[in-house]
Amino acid sequence: MNKPSIPKGTRDFSPIEVIRRNYIFNTIRKVFDKYAYQPIETPSFEKLSTLNGKYGEEGDQLLFKILMRGEKFKKALNHSIENQTSNDNHFSEEALRYDLTVPFARYIVQHQNDISFPFRRYQMQPVWRADRPQKGRYREFYQCDADIVGTSSLNCEVELVSIINDVLSKFSLNEHTIFINNRKILSALIESCGAKDYFKKITIIIDKLDKVGSDKVVSELKENIPNNNCSSLFKELFSIDESNEDLLVWLNSKIGQISEGKKGIQELSYVLNSCNSLGLNNLKVNLSLARGLDYYTGSIFEVVLNNYNIGSIVGGGRYDNLTQLFGQRDLSGVGISFGAERIYDVMNDLKMFPSELSNSPDFMVINSSDSLLDGFKLCNYVREQGFNCLIYPDDHKLKKQLKYANDLKIPFVLFVNDVFDVKMSVDCKDMKTGEQKAVLIKDL
Amino acid sequence: MNKPSIPKGTRDFSPIEVIRRNYIFNTIRKVFDKYAYQPIETPSFEKLSTLNGKYGEEGDQLLFKILMRGEKFKKALNHSIENQTSNDNHFSEEALRYDLTVPFARYIVQHQNDISFPFRRYQMQPVWRADRPQKGRYREFYQCDADIVGTSSLNCEVELVSIINDVLSKFSLNEHTIFINNRKILSALIESCGAKDYFKKITIIIDKLDKVGSDKVVSELKENIPNNNCSSLFKELFSIDESNEDLLVWLNSKIGQISEGKKGIQELSYVLNSCNSLGLNNLKVNLSLARGLDYYTGSIFEVVLNNYNIGSIVGGGRYDNLTQLFGQRDLSGVGISFGAERIYDVMNDLKMFPSELSNSPDFMVINSSDSLLDGFKLCNYVREQGFNCLIYPDDHKLKKQLKYANDLKIPFVLFVNDVFDVKMSVDCKDMKTGEQKAVLIKDL
Repeated sequence: MNKPSIPKGTRDFSPIEVIRRNYIFNTIRKVFDKYAYQPIETPSFEKLSTLNGKYGEEGDQLLFKILMRGEKFKKALNHSIENQTSNDNHFSEEALRYDLTVPFARYIVQHQNDISFPFRRYQMQPVWRADRPQKGRYREFYQCDADIVGTSSLNCEVELVSIINDVLSKFSLNEHTIFINNRKILSALIESCGAKDYFKKITIIIDKLDKVGSDKVVSELKENIPNNNCSSLFKELFSIDESNEDLLVWLNSKIGQISEGKKGIQELSYVLNSCNSLGLNNLKVNLSLARGLDYYTGSIFEVVLNNYNIGSIVGGGRYDNLTQLFGQRDLSGVGISFGAERIYDVMNDLKMFPSELSNSPDFMVINSSDSLLDGFKLCNYVREQGFNCLIYPDDHKLKKQLKYANDLKIPFVLFVNDVFDVKMSVDCKDMKTGEQKAVLIKDL
Repeated sequence: MNKPSIPKGTRDFSPIEVIRRNYIFNTIRKVFDKYAYQPIETPSFEKLSTLNGKYGEEGDQLLFKILMRGEKFKKALNHSIENQTSNDNHFSEEALRYDLTVPFARYIVQHQNDISFPFRRYQMQPVWRADRPQKGRYREFYQCDADIVGTSSLNCEVELVSIINDVLSKFSLNEHTIFINNRKILSALIESCGAKDYFKKITIIIDKLDKVGSDKVVSELKENIPNNNCSSLFKELFSIDESNEDLLVWLNSKIGQISEGKKGIQELSYVLNSCNSLGLNNLKVNLSLARGLDYYTGSIFEVVLNNYNIGSIVGGGRYDNLTQLFGQRDLSGVGISFGAERIYDVMNDLKMFPSELSNSPDFMVINSSDSLLDGFKLCNYVREQGFNCLIYPDDHKLKKQLKYANDLKIPFVLFVNDVFDVKMSVDCKDMKTGEQKAVLIKDL
């Protein structure tokens, strides 16, 4: 029989990995709580109709669809045979969620009568994408999202910047830059060079900047956008390295007369000024920041570490029409998503996890058939004192029991010498030094 | 556009529901930690070959299979057309996990070289079953499992009984009974009435006792087992209501001469005696307890609440050959699984959740454009003191802001009257009494 294995792009997590991952999730969760965001959870799979068409053509290809069962499957098969079609949508009514944003929009519309707006929600759950797996890219991974929906106030953007800094400082990832742009500015810039009709196409191309580099993006723009001003504009944008203030001046001269451009500049200025007043000084305007998702309409963010090259570890932006997908208009929202998996990878690589995160029990009681019940009672007593403790299950030779404690890196091993009593003393062996001495159990 | 909805048998969880569910998971997790079990996690979907054939025919029908994509899908479709077959397994290579036990067995075999045995692991993750949804039965639900693998010591059974009592007492669910039986006893009883070959079939029938009642089980046995002794035996077993001691005496006379029976009686006696010595007195021998799963070979458990009829809230047992499914022999294990969803339902129904579990922020700062930055600073200060706090995002009329605080059940609302300073005082409104007074922010 072959050794069993797991599907491509998925992972098992060992005890220490689970403990470290939970440390990351819980740290993020505590900050979200502190900022008074409220947790929700949605099902792992949604109706296919909820997800299909929401992530662009490429996204649709990456959905994990659930196969119909029983009669429905047979019907679908017959239908395909009779009509000589091969559309996999006929074989599925449900798919695993691809992100947390579309299910959130669905949730808002479905539960709108139970929600007080502005709704501040967070959600930390896995998502699934049938992407080609590679280092740092998995088919099952967690997203940690916080969004406020039901207000267009730019104070929300300021608050999210504050959350980003709070979370990353909890991880001692203080050397980071929050790149900011505004879809309205991007739109006006594209309008200014006469390529308005290609906005969507252009954002998809320039969103690949990180992956393929600026030369490739410029040549792709030349190839795909029938307007040469556009590629030259972005060539210029990619090479600009000005202060935020200088960029705003340049923008004003370039697109200040276009109404969308003016609005975008106002929004960007407000966020920058408010953040500065609050001492949030690590924002950097990046006019080529586009974000891959269609639904953004205002501010967009991406956060990178200054001294570690792993791509963006937080992303987000404002969307004015997301719930409209499900029939609810006029609910502007803004949100951010922490790339918990990447944060894990960085912290793991740089050995930044707190040393107290351990999967080793605090104590092990040696099993001896003479004193088994007393061993059990001692073990329970130690647990009641707040320690993690086990009693070795079998009456094996001492050497074997000690080897087990050693393998599990258990620091102290206890020997029962007497009938259990809360005033008793036990022999306690320090597994590091090998030293063994009698201690009162109340002093453990 | 129709109001969006979620797939049959799945659920959205609102903030207070998430908080209460996490309270349940975290309470169980803390007890598992205290007993020095270690957390692992496995992927949401496994290779279909890992899961198929492990849960009986009925279980296989209930797997959520993942549809192949792209070329693979087309090949599968062509294959079905050419061979005129309609086997849905051709359309899928992966399926959502059905329980945590089979993935755990797969994990052990796959990672055996990194594991120190006995391996004490816990796992708290959702599972998926395409079962007919009904009250209390969902298609996506959590399991919370603890298992020890790599020892046949019955002390593990005793420890698990202790864990069950510890967890349930944390939930103040103290009035419960732990039904215990042993598959070897069951097997010997069935052997004693000459129906040995029908063991599996019989356990499946009597496992339905809870759902269909004893009369129906007896008549099903009569119908399906070509041996009338069997139905009379179980008719007798269902009506027996003796003490544990008397049952053991009865068993000794009935199956004490059958070697498997003798072994089973010894095992059961050991667990009962050890538990009694440790003051774990709520075990009750139940000879008709069967458990639905094939892989059990020794002790089996089910826990019910004495005063609330919701079926079993914990189940478990010993399995000697589980990892053999994946080619690894001689690893006996025993485990329990907490029905966290049912525990939630009971606690919700009986209003037993601690009142401090709330999704209401502690404070809200009123937004006033005159003092916006000071409001932001106050809000951050309050957060630093360990409170959950928000500032209302828009400069709306006071009435609207107060209504929002009221809707969210926020107990205190703060008004900024001055330039922010850590020595400042603010007006604090008690939303319950309506009282408003100036307080130093350090005294909040």
